[in-house]
Amino acid sequence: MVDILGGKGAGLAEMARIRLNVPPGFTVSTEACVEYLKTGKVKETLWAEILDHLSALEKTSGKKFGGTQNPLLVSVRSGAAISMPGMMDTILNVGLNDHTVKALSDLTNNERFAYDSYRRLIQMFGEVVLSISHDEFEEKISEAKKRNGVRGDNELSTTALKDLIKEYLEIYGKFREKFPQDPMMQLRVAVEAVFKSWNSERAKTYRQLNDIPETLGTAVSVVSMVFGNMGDDSATGVAFTRDPNNGEKKIFAEYLTNAQGEDVVAGIRTPREIKDLQKEMPHAYNELIKSADTLEKHYRDMQDIEFTIEKGTFFLLQTRNGKRSAKAAVKVAVDLVNEGFIDNKEAILRITPQVLDTLLHPQVKYNGSERVLGKGLAASPGAASGTIVFSSERAVELAKEKKKLVLVRPETTADDVRGMSVSQGFLTQKGGMTSHAAVVARAMGKPAVVGVESMTVNLREQTLRIGDEVYREGDTITVDGTNGQFLLGETSLETASITPEAQVLLKWCDSYRKLGVRANANTPLEARIARENGAEGIGLARTERMFLGNERIQIMRAMIMSTTLADRLKYLDQLLPMQVADFTEFLRTMDGYPVIIRLLDPPLHEFLPNKEEILSEIFDLKLKLGNTKESKELDDIIGKLSDLRTLLQTVKNLEEFNPMLGFRGCRLGLSYPEIYEMQVKAIITAAIKVKEQGHTILPEIMIPLVGHMNELKRLRERLEEVARKAAGDKDIDYKFGTMIEIPRACITADKIAEFADFFSFGTNDLTQMTFGYSRDDAEGKFLANYVEEGILPTDPFATVDEEGVGELMKMAVERGRKTNRNLEVGICGEQGGDPSTIHFCNRIGLDYVSASPYRIPIARLSAARAFLEDGKR
Amino acid sequence: MVDILGGKGAGLAEMARIRLNVPPGFTVSTEACVEYLKTGKVKETLWAEILDHLSALEKTSGKKFGGTQNPLLVSVRSGAAISMPGMMDTILNVGLNDHTVKALSDLTNNERFAYDSYRRLIQMFGEVVLSISHDEFEEKISEAKKRNGVRGDNELSTTALKDLIKEYLEIYGKFREKFPQDPMMQLRVAVEAVFKSWNSERAKTYRQLNDIPETLGTAVSVVSMVFGNMGDDSATGVAFTRDPNNGEKKIFAEYLTNAQGEDVVAGIRTPREIKDLQKEMPHAYNELIKSADTLEKHYRDMQDIEFTIEKGTFFLLQTRNGKRSAKAAVKVAVDLVNEGFIDNKEAILRITPQVLDTLLHPQVKYNGSERVLGKGLAASPGAASGTIVFSSERAVELAKEKKKLVLVRPETTADDVRGMSVSQGFLTQKGGMTSHAAVVARAMGKPAVVGVESMTVNLREQTLRIGDEVYREGDTITVDGTNGQFLLGETSLETASITPEAQVLLKWCDSYRKLGVRANANTPLEARIARENGAEGIGLARTERMFLGNERIQIMRAMIMSTTLADRLKYLDQLLPMQVADFTEFLRTMDGYPVIIRLLDPPLHEFLPNKEEILSEIFDLKLKLGNTKESKELDDIIGKLSDLRTLLQTVKNLEEFNPMLGFRGCRLGLSYPEIYEMQVKAIITAAIKVKEQGHTILPEIMIPLVGHMNELKRLRERLEEVARKAAGDKDIDYKFGTMIEIPRACITADKIAEFADFFSFGTNDLTQMTFGYSRDDAEGKFLANYVEEGILPTDPFATVDEEGVGELMKMAVERGRKTNRNLEVGICGEQGGDPSTIHFCNRIGLDYVSASPYRIPIARLSAARAFLEDGKR
Repeated sequence: MVDILGGKGAGLAEMARIRLNVPPGFTVSTEACVEYLKTGKVKETLWAEILDHLSALEKTSGKKFGGTQNPLLVSVRSGAAISMPGMMDTILNVGLNDHTVKALSDLTNNERFAYDSYRRLIQMFGEVVLSISHDEFEEKISEAKKRNGVRGDNELSTTALKDLIKEYLEIYGKFREKFPQDPMMQLRVAVEAVFKSWNSERAKTYRQLNDIPETLGTAVSVVSMVFGNMGDDSATGVAFTRDPNNGEKKIFAEYLTNAQGEDVVAGIRTPREIKDLQKEMPHAYNELIKSADTLEKHYRDMQDIEFTIEKGTFFLLQTRNGKRSAKAAVKVAVDLVNEGFIDNKEAILRITPQVLDTLLHPQVKYNGSERVLGKGLAASPGAASGTIVFSSERAVELAKEKKKLVLVRPETTADDVRGMSVSQGFLTQKGGMTSHAAVVARAMGKPAVVGVESMTVNLREQTLRIGDEVYREGDTITVDGTNGQFLLGETSLETASITPEAQVLLKWCDSYRKLGVRANANTPLEARIARENGAEGIGLARTERMFLGNERIQIMRAMIMSTTLADRLKYLDQLLPMQVADFTEFLRTMDGYPVIIRLLDPPLHEFLPNKEEILSEIFDLKLKLGNTKESKELDDIIGKLSDLRTLLQTVKNLEEFNPMLGFRGCRLGLSYPEIYEMQVKAIITAAIKVKEQGHTILPEIMIPLVGHMNELKRLRERLEEVARKAAGDKDIDYKFGTMIEIPRACITADKIAEFADFFSFGTNDLTQMTFGYSRDDAEGKFLANYVEEGILPTDPFATVDEEGVGELMKMAVERGRKTNRNLEVGICGEQGGDPSTIHFCNRIGLDYVSASPYRIPIARLSAARAFLEDGKR
Repeated sequence: MVDILGGKGAGLAEMARIRLNVPPGFTVSTEACVEYLKTGKVKETLWAEILDHLSALEKTSGKKFGGTQNPLLVSVRSGAAISMPGMMDTILNVGLNDHTVKALSDLTNNERFAYDSYRRLIQMFGEVVLSISHDEFEEKISEAKKRNGVRGDNELSTTALKDLIKEYLEIYGKFREKFPQDPMMQLRVAVEAVFKSWNSERAKTYRQLNDIPETLGTAVSVVSMVFGNMGDDSATGVAFTRDPNNGEKKIFAEYLTNAQGEDVVAGIRTPREIKDLQKEMPHAYNELIKSADTLEKHYRDMQDIEFTIEKGTFFLLQTRNGKRSAKAAVKVAVDLVNEGFIDNKEAILRITPQVLDTLLHPQVKYNGSERVLGKGLAASPGAASGTIVFSSERAVELAKEKKKLVLVRPETTADDVRGMSVSQGFLTQKGGMTSHAAVVARAMGKPAVVGVESMTVNLREQTLRIGDEVYREGDTITVDGTNGQFLLGETSLETASITPEAQVLLKWCDSYRKLGVRANANTPLEARIARENGAEGIGLARTERMFLGNERIQIMRAMIMSTTLADRLKYLDQLLPMQVADFTEFLRTMDGYPVIIRLLDPPLHEFLPNKEEILSEIFDLKLKLGNTKESKELDDIIGKLSDLRTLLQTVKNLEEFNPMLGFRGCRLGLSYPEIYEMQVKAIITAAIKVKEQGHTILPEIMIPLVGHMNELKRLRERLEEVARKAAGDKDIDYKFGTMIEIPRACITADKIAEFADFFSFGTNDLTQMTFGYSRDDAEGKFLANYVEEGILPTDPFATVDEEGVGELMKMAVERGRKTNRNLEVGICGEQGGDPSTIHFCNRIGLDYVSASPYRIPIARLSAARAFLEDGKR
């Protein structure tokens, strides 16, 4: 009943049901919250129900809420259906006032405990209900500790606590507020405050970042208090049933003795390790181990537990599926399959592409010359370099300037989430592995180093001090969340290798997915990486990138400057052996897998220097001309000027108003067929060579920018003739197909498919033309705004726009296959590596997706998840 | 049976059927021609059939083919199903040889006639069958005339003719050929030659120009000869049943006494007028008048007749619907309705948009200062200026350089059609109103002046002489085909007014057509012209053109250079009253009709000077700076430089890689809403004003470049608020809609229609994006080639590409109307004035088309024809 009771309430109820030790209580439903947020009022029937349940609780516990003999105290805790850790509010010790605090003191014979609990209530109530700043209270605690010469809040004496309470009440006065002495009033406004915290800024931000619907609301659990702050036989703690950092199967917990509630999570004192608990409170420790085991079996997943030990008795306060690092997520999922808890389909569905992506995050490539500035806890793996920034506001500003950032804080709170989401990594002075910074970093898949006690962060001065050295905003550091170090300056990073568990998972993926996964690779090196990452072929090899080498570009330019066919052929003959060498390497690397080679696509002017460069060179030479007297030198300059003029004229002739829509792709191929002819000859020659070396070759020749079937028809006729000649008596099989990247090609796909063995969606250009966006112009000018303001739901260059571009793709698939049943259809646009796009491609029945070599694992996982979730093909 | 017998054969058969006097004969079918062209052989069964019919002809006439007593002579004439005047070959006098010529001489007692006929056969046979050049024979005639001191070929004596025949046979010898003496052989190769002439270069060109299918083939009529060259009681002539130049209902004929065949059409002698025939051969004249009347009634159209008078007996050799000038075509069609021959639907269907277009051709605007170079026959109306050119080859070359040309020839033949098609007008020294030049000019709708006897065209020297003056290629002249003059240099031209008959016809069109016709008008002046031409509203008023005036562009620039909203608003406030004035004028002119005003569309940099200009100005100022000593002047230059630098920076910021797909249209409107707000305020303010003056106003506000419904939704919400405020308590009705010019808008039309009262297809941009063509780049670089080589069937910027762009339009109409049943849908791209596009728009159910003001009559006619041919709406 998570939807109605929230994660916390449902967890408590479920734990009670399976007879784990939880304190008694009841939960107000999320529906009540939604109702409250709509009307702004607690319905009288709801209040009556709460009172009924409170009575029942009094009866069960034998205590009385507000009673001066044996007072019942409760916690009022938030809990949404989808976990939003730390985002909403909780108030403990509700029911304490000037009278009941005395009763509690008498009853427990522990005055210090009673007043510690009371000051906590006053503080939490002030913060949560009255929005008084946390710092106001913390300042007073700090003063009290200084005054009393103690380091921890647990060392403050009863008298000191009573003074602190007075000071707290003065803070209330400063804000013209009063702490309500009526326990019923406390309860009522505490419930309302928790309801309202659903709509706090930080909660909204979190929901936005995590795609959680705004309409859910939070439940409110009202639970009898148990106390971890009753002395040194009491404690409060959190535990993960497995290591959330690496997934190892051993309990991972932290606790604080004589502490309450969020003290551990908030990183106020540095917590103690679980092995100490085993020594100090062996009974409670055994209870924890037993409960963890029971819960993992029950929920079939790693659990994140909150517990309290009250005078040696172990209580569970909460359980939920534990957040974990990407590495841990994969290991846990695979281990759970091996342990027989879940099947491998479920393991695949549990690992989101984002998780796997994190696993593929870069790592510092140490070379020994790094300057290590400090070491803390390796809270979230990966590494990132960036400029130091000290606040969320500033981080957001700098992020707009495309700065890479490392957010540096004493500790982080929910208010920092906005800044964290725009930073590349985090560094905190305080906090442990379960601190806010650590949890959020893992969830975001960003590196974090926390609890670096050797450094001091001064927010007022905006400095980070380490010994005598001071660092400020603008200085660059690198955080290594994998080993807990942080370094001065930027370092070189290394792509993470896939863990053995991830390899296992990806193999399972391959056994389910119906979509093929190929790579976009422009060099033989990229092709090799693609194979290592599991690509089953090349979906796009862009041949133009092969002409950019220093020697080649000169030949290419000479070819472009030629005015006769004979000259062009001469230079193309020089390029031929180079192309043959490229293709040979590709085909050999992809032994047994298809390789789609796209013939020359970009406009010719891309191979020439730009006009401004030439003009400025001409200008310089002219200046020189004026200062030159010597005849030989003069001749030399004049000769150069004449060459530059010819070059300038060529550049001007090739100049275009809208090059994206200009003279390129097959339009060039039809005007200068000799270029494509050279390329096809090279492909066939390479294929013969590789085949003779005993490899299996599957070359596919792809024509770019086809918009009318006649373009493909004429080129195919012409180029197949060339291929036939090049093959001679050798038997070379190949496919002949086309990019589908022009809207008209989608609309007339039935006709184009008559001349194509395959289609490959070029969704970059298709998106540009379908939207009428020039990507280079749009991103800087209006597209970011469009996405930010919600005019567009997502960036269509990252995820295929299903409504528009996707509709054209669907049309192309249907019409193309109508004419040519065996048509092979894939995607090679950048969106081909995007999980949501891969789901879409699976749904419309593509044969494969092609992504960058580094995205191949993501694509394999996404394709499997798509099939498991949606079926098809 | 035109398809099988060809126009000529069917005409002869039909005339015989209704008992008009035609010589006996038979026709070989077009099917036989198709068969021959496929196999290259005359089938033996076909030849046997021809011989059978020849025997029958011998029996009817009592003559014998090849007989030395009473020889049968025949003409072998081509005749396609669709008239291709002068394009294919004809041979007369077949059956004459050294023996039969004597028999003919004896029989007719007219030796001169017999040898004249014989030399004609030898000449025609040489030209047609053996492809010996016409000039070879003409040169010999010219020499003979000079030698004998005569001017016309009809003055050559029998002896001279016999000598000429000898010389002709020598020409044969020169080409190692022989004239066949066997009449059967003559007949056989003559039939084959006519078959082959279907595939002559000139015939192919003509078919291409006139969209005649290549597969039809020509029929061959074999007809007993009748002779117009038997003396002064014989003649040959052509007649139109009405004046083909202006359509007046009176017979229009030319003839030559003692002449044969094509002498009149070829313009060899200047022919005589019909009133002379009435005097000289009244009987034949009466027969002609009677036949003309019968034929017009029978065919319900103006006829073009060929006749021969043999010794006073009138024979009809051919009848067909007469080619006519545009003016005549309209007058004849309207007159035929009034005379009860046809109904007005048929009149509309007979007038193609091309004909009406010709009527709208420009005329010379005389101001008295023109230098008239000469006068000839006004053979085809309209006027054109251009550079003199003397040959087809040279004309084709110059046309590639976009030169405007006037083709000047002694006379034109079918070989000149290619040159005529790339020239703007024609001028010939010889020939009459039915000469080749005149007929082709009228068909092409181009001006022509023919038969200018005062001038001499020398092809060898490439000169045009008039008295002492010599004109050469490169000199510019103007031909006025309406009054027959030609003038020195270029003159100003005036758009033709629509004739009263055309007005009548267009009214009939308005009563049938279902498509509305609006105009694209950017200025109030254009709006007025549009109204005069019958536009029912404005389909597109581009507001950006209103900012280009000298004063306005300065304000516009200041607005663009502003860095704050306050500054932008200040300048927009200055533009507001100017926009109000523009819109007031528009709305007043279009009283009672809708006016669609499109808000600002182009990218802002279009309003700024271009980068090169600014850079060169900066360069100049820097040079000046070096030479300036005076301090005040220095300050001045430095100030200017600083301003230019700011301007340069703005221009650079606005620079785009692909401006067509860039920051423009509603993308600008969403980023700087204040611009659209000013425009909407101006529209509503103008509307209030014009309404208060008692006019009916129907303003429609149009948003450009919408690709996602959210763009329209947000702008509509925002701008309707502005409109409400601007209207205050006034009741101003308006529509709010969008251009549909982005493929995505078509695909998601159902969603966009939720926020649109109307759609207007911007087919220029829609074509650019659907094809991925940048029009400015494509036309010069590959589009012309694509059309020429048949990769594309037509230029998609002239005629909507139905297969691709049209498919998107259909989708948009269907989806849009599904959401919004009352959606008004039109087209405002340039193709909106193209007849074939208008047919398409009618078919897919648009509400209106919008065309340039001058194209409105064409649109009215095309819309009516579309409805009459296809129905719909």
